[in-house]
Amino acid sequence: MKTIKVHLGDRSYPIYTEKNLLMKIPSILSKKNIGQKWVIISQYRLMELFGFELMSLLKENEFNIDFITLPMGETAKSLNEYSRVISQMIELGCDRSSIILALGGGVVGDVSGFVATSFMRGIKYYQVPTTLLAMVDSSIGGKTGINTSEGKNLIGSIYQPQGVLVDPAILNFLSREEVNAGLGEVIKYGAIRDSKFFNDISEWLDDIESFPFEKAIYRACEIKAEIVSLDEQECGMRRLLNFGHTIGHALEANLGYGKIRHGEAVSLGMKCAGWISEQLNFISKTENQFLAQTIDKLTLPSTSKIDFDSILSYVRKDKKVRNGVLHFIVLDALGKGNVCDKVSYDLIKQSLKILL
Amino acid sequence: MKTIKVHLGDRSYPIYTEKNLLMKIPSILSKKNIGQKWVIISQYRLMELFGFELMSLLKENEFNIDFITLPMGETAKSLNEYSRVISQMIELGCDRSSIILALGGGVVGDVSGFVATSFMRGIKYYQVPTTLLAMVDSSIGGKTGINTSEGKNLIGSIYQPQGVLVDPAILNFLSREEVNAGLGEVIKYGAIRDSKFFNDISEWLDDIESFPFEKAIYRACEIKAEIVSLDEQECGMRRLLNFGHTIGHALEANLGYGKIRHGEAVSLGMKCAGWISEQLNFISKTENQFLAQTIDKLTLPSTSKIDFDSILSYVRKDKKVRNGVLHFIVLDALGKGNVCDKVSYDLIKQSLKILL
Repeated sequence: MKTIKVHLGDRSYPIYTEKNLLMKIPSILSKKNIGQKWVIISQYRLMELFGFELMSLLKENEFNIDFITLPMGETAKSLNEYSRVISQMIELGCDRSSIILALGGGVVGDVSGFVATSFMRGIKYYQVPTTLLAMVDSSIGGKTGINTSEGKNLIGSIYQPQGVLVDPAILNFLSREEVNAGLGEVIKYGAIRDSKFFNDISEWLDDIESFPFEKAIYRACEIKAEIVSLDEQECGMRRLLNFGHTIGHALEANLGYGKIRHGEAVSLGMKCAGWISEQLNFISKTENQFLAQTIDKLTLPSTSKIDFDSILSYVRKDKKVRNGVLHFIVLDALGKGNVCDKVSYDLIKQSLKILL
Repeated sequence: MKTIKVHLGDRSYPIYTEKNLLMKIPSILSKKNIGQKWVIISQYRLMELFGFELMSLLKENEFNIDFITLPMGETAKSLNEYSRVISQMIELGCDRSSIILALGGGVVGDVSGFVATSFMRGIKYYQVPTTLLAMVDSSIGGKTGINTSEGKNLIGSIYQPQGVLVDPAILNFLSREEVNAGLGEVIKYGAIRDSKFFNDISEWLDDIESFPFEKAIYRACEIKAEIVSLDEQECGMRRLLNFGHTIGHALEANLGYGKIRHGEAVSLGMKCAGWISEQLNFISKTENQFLAQTIDKLTLPSTSKIDFDSILSYVRKDKKVRNGVLHFIVLDALGKGNVCDKVSYDLIKQSLKILL
């Protein structure tokens, strides 16, 4: 079992990665089991795929465990669903000693994390990511989030889990499209932090059937852990992880949540951000072409119906706007992200043309 | 201006106390004003009493400031009101750099704190307490809370403010009953931590017209700051601050929020907890009598209509229950609180008889 550590003082925690790790969870967590209530927060489909089996195993090992399901998709990230989960936790007899296992993708992780941060002023939780995107990104770093009608993740916290348990074998249960979506975030790590990794990914994508997921996940987790360790509160380097996300989030909002996957939207956002970086002479035309060609190796959804003005209005409401200034993530080179305060809304609007 | 420091590493902050401090807030905060949006969260009555004047002063000093009001009473601590405040923050153009001034009592502080902890994953806030209870207790230590239909503060976090600005002159605006309610919490500090302070308070209460509020507030803030500094997460000593609260919260829930003030309920809860401490031979009959007589110097509401079973059911759902074990706060002596795991629900039920 490989271990990567997120270094955050008394909030430090390990990321464990190994094929078929899921079934080892009872032994990994046995030392933490002192009779308290455990709750798996997941989706029914995932419970059927592996959640019920995991729960049986935990029960056999004397865990007092129940489960709560969330609906599929972004609708789960509402205050209504959040409130329902809190009520169910009370009904199940949860208290301050209870521990949550967030078994799912980004949505489950975001909601579970916000439940953990706010239930009786904070309880412990573990992330057990079941999508590629969650494995390499959302499960690490403690970001939690709930959407409001005004936008995505406008409610949330930074609240670190006790550990992240990554089982790459879970990817075998996912559709090609789901895995593809997550590859966008893997490309992101190469683009902002590791040109060698970027080159590797680009090459690996030429033969996606043989894509070395374990290797890619491990390196992506390493980069994420390093960045979070250096900047938990997203004041500096952690902002680089938003590469592709300003436009990505706005695309999701414009097309409607559920119409495009988060990872897909981020991939398209990275293409725009690459184009913007080229316009500002931060990277060369060749570099931007290499970025765009690599992203295009993923099969991405059509964006012919996007509404530029609507997207711009979402960009203006982005959390990365501080004091009215948009902090946009650009590339200074392939493998080197940077924050730029000089990207105009007009340039962002122009960049959307490359998606048509 | 007197300053007490809450020592919490990079989350440390000052408590400033001084008569008429309210009008000095612009100068105290001027260094923090770098053009971001400020928002006062308060109640309309408080805005009329001193909020609008404070806002004018801040505007004169080039603060970009708006306000949001909450309804009076415990109804403000709902997810609905919380959600409305978040929406208004977005409408006002708030972003991650925005800062909240929580101008009010415990309810305003609890909701504002939870807004601050969760708006765009956390923004800064200051507590400006306007009740005695908030000045000596709820504004210090970062506890935030929202109620659900299942109980009080079941949603919340521990999220420290940037500072607490205490103006004892505000007490002149309050009714005698409101001030009395807060005195219960002042007695608590003496009972759990400082027998000399307890004796002083008991004496001062004999001539309430001359009660030295500034002195009492300062000492209470000192004790609270010390305890929070030693145990931010309420794993140890901070639990002592719950003296009187297990039964107090249950009384509030049974009688209906708004029918009894929090401080009043805590005073009654302390009488029960004192009686329990005597039954368990932790304190003498004389000590318990001294505690009860001191509490009785406050004018407390009638509790002839309380329902013992309903109160017990609330006690069982208390946040201080961990792993099914209730951690009850008793006195080992007047001036020395302690946590006790051996207080039976039956003994709690018996203790309620002294309230009839």
